[in-house]
Amino acid sequence: MIELSNFGRKFVGDIGILHLMDDLGKAVAAGDSIMMGGGNPSQIPAVQSVFRDRMLRMLDGDEFERVIGNYDGPAGSTAFRRELVNFFCEEYGWKISERNIAFTNGSQSAFFFLFNMLSGEFGEGQHKRILLPLAPEYIGYEDVGLSADSFISYKPQIRVSDDRTFKYFVDFDALEIDESVGAICVSRPTNPTGNVLTEAEISRLSALAQQHNIPLIIDNAYGTPFPSIIFTDAEPRWEPHIIMCMSLSKLGLPGMRTGIVIAHERIIEAMMGMSAVLTLAPGGFGAALAVDAVRTRQILDISHNIVRPHYQQRSEYAQKLLHDALAGTDYYIHKSEGAIFLWLWFKDMPITSAELYNRLKQRGVIVVPGHYFFPGLADDGWRHRHECIRLNYAGESAEVAEGIRIIGEEVKKAYLQVKMRE
Amino acid sequence: MIELSNFGRKFVGDIGILHLMDDLGKAVAAGDSIMMGGGNPSQIPAVQSVFRDRMLRMLDGDEFERVIGNYDGPAGSTAFRRELVNFFCEEYGWKISERNIAFTNGSQSAFFFLFNMLSGEFGEGQHKRILLPLAPEYIGYEDVGLSADSFISYKPQIRVSDDRTFKYFVDFDALEIDESVGAICVSRPTNPTGNVLTEAEISRLSALAQQHNIPLIIDNAYGTPFPSIIFTDAEPRWEPHIIMCMSLSKLGLPGMRTGIVIAHERIIEAMMGMSAVLTLAPGGFGAALAVDAVRTRQILDISHNIVRPHYQQRSEYAQKLLHDALAGTDYYIHKSEGAIFLWLWFKDMPITSAELYNRLKQRGVIVVPGHYFFPGLADDGWRHRHECIRLNYAGESAEVAEGIRIIGEEVKKAYLQVKMRE
Repeated sequence: MIELSNFGRKFVGDIGILHLMDDLGKAVAAGDSIMMGGGNPSQIPAVQSVFRDRMLRMLDGDEFERVIGNYDGPAGSTAFRRELVNFFCEEYGWKISERNIAFTNGSQSAFFFLFNMLSGEFGEGQHKRILLPLAPEYIGYEDVGLSADSFISYKPQIRVSDDRTFKYFVDFDALEIDESVGAICVSRPTNPTGNVLTEAEISRLSALAQQHNIPLIIDNAYGTPFPSIIFTDAEPRWEPHIIMCMSLSKLGLPGMRTGIVIAHERIIEAMMGMSAVLTLAPGGFGAALAVDAVRTRQILDISHNIVRPHYQQRSEYAQKLLHDALAGTDYYIHKSEGAIFLWLWFKDMPITSAELYNRLKQRGVIVVPGHYFFPGLADDGWRHRHECIRLNYAGESAEVAEGIRIIGEEVKKAYLQVKMRE
Repeated sequence: MIELSNFGRKFVGDIGILHLMDDLGKAVAAGDSIMMGGGNPSQIPAVQSVFRDRMLRMLDGDEFERVIGNYDGPAGSTAFRRELVNFFCEEYGWKISERNIAFTNGSQSAFFFLFNMLSGEFGEGQHKRILLPLAPEYIGYEDVGLSADSFISYKPQIRVSDDRTFKYFVDFDALEIDESVGAICVSRPTNPTGNVLTEAEISRLSALAQQHNIPLIIDNAYGTPFPSIIFTDAEPRWEPHIIMCMSLSKLGLPGMRTGIVIAHERIIEAMMGMSAVLTLAPGGFGAALAVDAVRTRQILDISHNIVRPHYQQRSEYAQKLLHDALAGTDYYIHKSEGAIFLWLWFKDMPITSAELYNRLKQRGVIVVPGHYFFPGLADDGWRHRHECIRLNYAGESAEVAEGIRIIGEEVKKAYLQVKMRE
C-alpha cells in the first residue's frame, strides 16, 4: 500500500467540492440524472455561434496552429491581456496595465494561488486567514487552503420578505479585522445564493480592506461587465487593493478553463511565479476564442443582451415553479440577484439538507446540500446551515421543471413526515 | 505594501523555471531572439494537419459546442480516458482501467500533485523526499515541492566517448533508499540531457521501488509510445507501482495543456481530489483533439513515422553544426537519445554556464544555463554543474544554425580569454 503525505491524504477524504464534481461527472456521463448540482452554464445558441464564428476565423489562416502549438508565458496570452487592458481602461476608466493581469487554468486555480499567498504562515509563527464576511460562500474555497485554518467567516443578517423570499446582508458589527486577517474575499454575485452585495456593502468592505492594508478579493465569475449574470445595478470597479477575479466559464466556455485575475502588480508577479512553477503556463485556447469579442466589444453585447436576459428569464421561470411546487411548506427563496443558482431555505425542515440531497439523488435529481457552503464558520449548532440547498437553474426548461416537481414532492414529504409523527 | 505569506514569497524569488518561462515569453513576444531556451516543440505541418482535420470534424456537428461548453469531471474527459485504456491494453497488454487514468492541465500540474502527495510531511514529524537517481534532471521539478527539502539527487557516472560525446549513467552504488524516500522519479528521455536510461537501469530502479514499496515516477513526456521522440529502443511499460506521466505537448499541442497520468487507482483517486480542489477540472480541448488519433491508432503512425524522424534528423543536423562550431574547445555533447534538447558540456570552461547564458542573451540567443538542472543535489563545488547548457534544437533550421554559430563564437571566446590570460 503506497503511503500518502499529510497533504495527499487531505484529498482522499470527504471533500465538498470533490463530492460535487464527482456527482456532476457521473451524472453527465450516465446521462440519466437531472443535473441541478454543478455549475454548468446554459448552452445558449446565440453565444455559441459567436465562438463558432471565431473558431472558423481562427482556421482561416494559421492562427489555429499557432494557438495549439505554442506555450504562452506564465501570465498567459499577451494578446488577450493587451485587449483586456484596453477594454477596462477605455470602457471603465480603470488604471491598469498588462502587468496587472494574469490568466489561470480556470478561476479555481486563481483562488488556490491567491488564498495561499495571502493566508497561512507569515514570517515566524504568524498565521493569517482569509476573511469571508458573509457565509454562505462558495464551496470551492473550503479546501483550497494549504494550512489547516485558512478561513474565518461570519453569519449573515437575514431579512425575510412577505413573498417567501429573503436576502442575506453582511453583519458589519460582527466582523473583526486584525493582524490575523490576510485578505477579505466575497463572491459577487454570490455562489451559492445568487445574492449581490449592495454597492454600500462593497464600498464598506473596500474601505475596511484599504484601512487594514489588505486586499479585497472579489470573485466576479458571474458579474459585471461580463458575463453579466447579475440582475441588479453594479458598476465594474477596480482599485489597487482590489483583486478582481473573472472567468470565461459562465459566458459559455467552462471547458476552456480560463480564469482572469486583475490585481496589483506585486500580486500578479507572485501569481506568475506560481503559474510557472505549478502549471508552467495557462492554456491559451479560451483566450484565443474570446480576444476578438473583447476587442470589438461584442462581449458587452453578448453579456447584456443575450446572457443576462437568458438567465434572468430562466431564474424567474424556476422561481415561479418553485413557489408552486413548495407551497404549503415553510420554504424561502433567496432573492435571485445574479449567478446561475437559486438558494432555497427550508425553515425548520425535519430532515437535514444532506438527507434531502440523498433522497433527491435516489430520485435522479442532483442538487448540492447547503452545509458545504459555510467555509470558515465554526459549528455552533446553527440550524440554518442544514436547512438550505443550492439549485442550478440553468438547465433545459423541461428538466428544470421535472427536477423542481420532484424537489417539491420530497420537501413536502419531509415536512409531512414529522407532522405525522407529532 | 501588501504582505505575502511564506508560501507566496517563495514565488517572487529567483526561480529557475520562472526565469526560463519569462525569457521564453519575452523572446516570443518580441520576436527578435533566437529561442533555444524553452521547451517549445517544432511546428510539423504533417502533424498540424491531423489536428486541423480533427478540428474541422469537431465543427461538423455540435461537438465543438459540447467541448467548450461543459466541465469535465476532475479526472478529465471520460471519452479520452476510455480510448487510452483500450489503446494501452490492446497495444501493450497493460492491465489498466479508467480508474488508473487522470488528466491534468499539463504535466507540470501532475508533478505538483504527485511530488506533494509522495513527499513532505508524513504523520507526525516524518519527512520524505523524492529521490532523483540521476542529476541533471528536469528544471521544472525544483520548486514544485511545498516543503523546503523535497528532493535528494545523485551525481551520475559519466562515460566519455572518442567522438566528443558522453553519456550519464545512474550510480547505483551511491543510491541510498530508506524510510525518508517517498518515491523515485526519472524523466526518460531526460529533460535536459536527451539521455534515455537503459532498459537495465529502468528495471533496476523499478525493482528498487517495488522492494521499498514506493512508486517509480516515469516522466515520459517525450517518450514511448507517443510522442516517441526517443531514438533508442524502449518498450512502453507499466506496473501498479509505476506512475507513468505523459503529455500531448510534444506531439504538438503545448497550448492545450494536457498531461496524462497512469497510476495505481489510489494515486489517481488522490489526484482527482487535488484536481477538483485546486483546479475544479482539467481542460477538455486537448483530449478532444487527440481522442480520434488514439482510437484509430493514427497517433502511433504520427509518432513513429513523422515526429520521431523529424526530431532525429533535427538533432543530427544540430549536432553536426555544433561539432563544427565548437571545434578546438573542450566540449562534449551528451548522446542524443531523445527529447528535444542537446546538452553541452564545456569541460574546464573558464566562465560559468550562467555567465555564458548572459553573454548569449546579449547576442540574442536564449539557452538555459545548466546549473538549474540539479534539483536536490547538495552543492559540493562540483564544477561540472556549472559547465553545461541546454539547447532546444527543435526550431527552424536557419535559426538553429545561426544560434549555434553564435554559441560557437562565445564559447571559443570564453576559452580563449583565459588562454590569453595565462
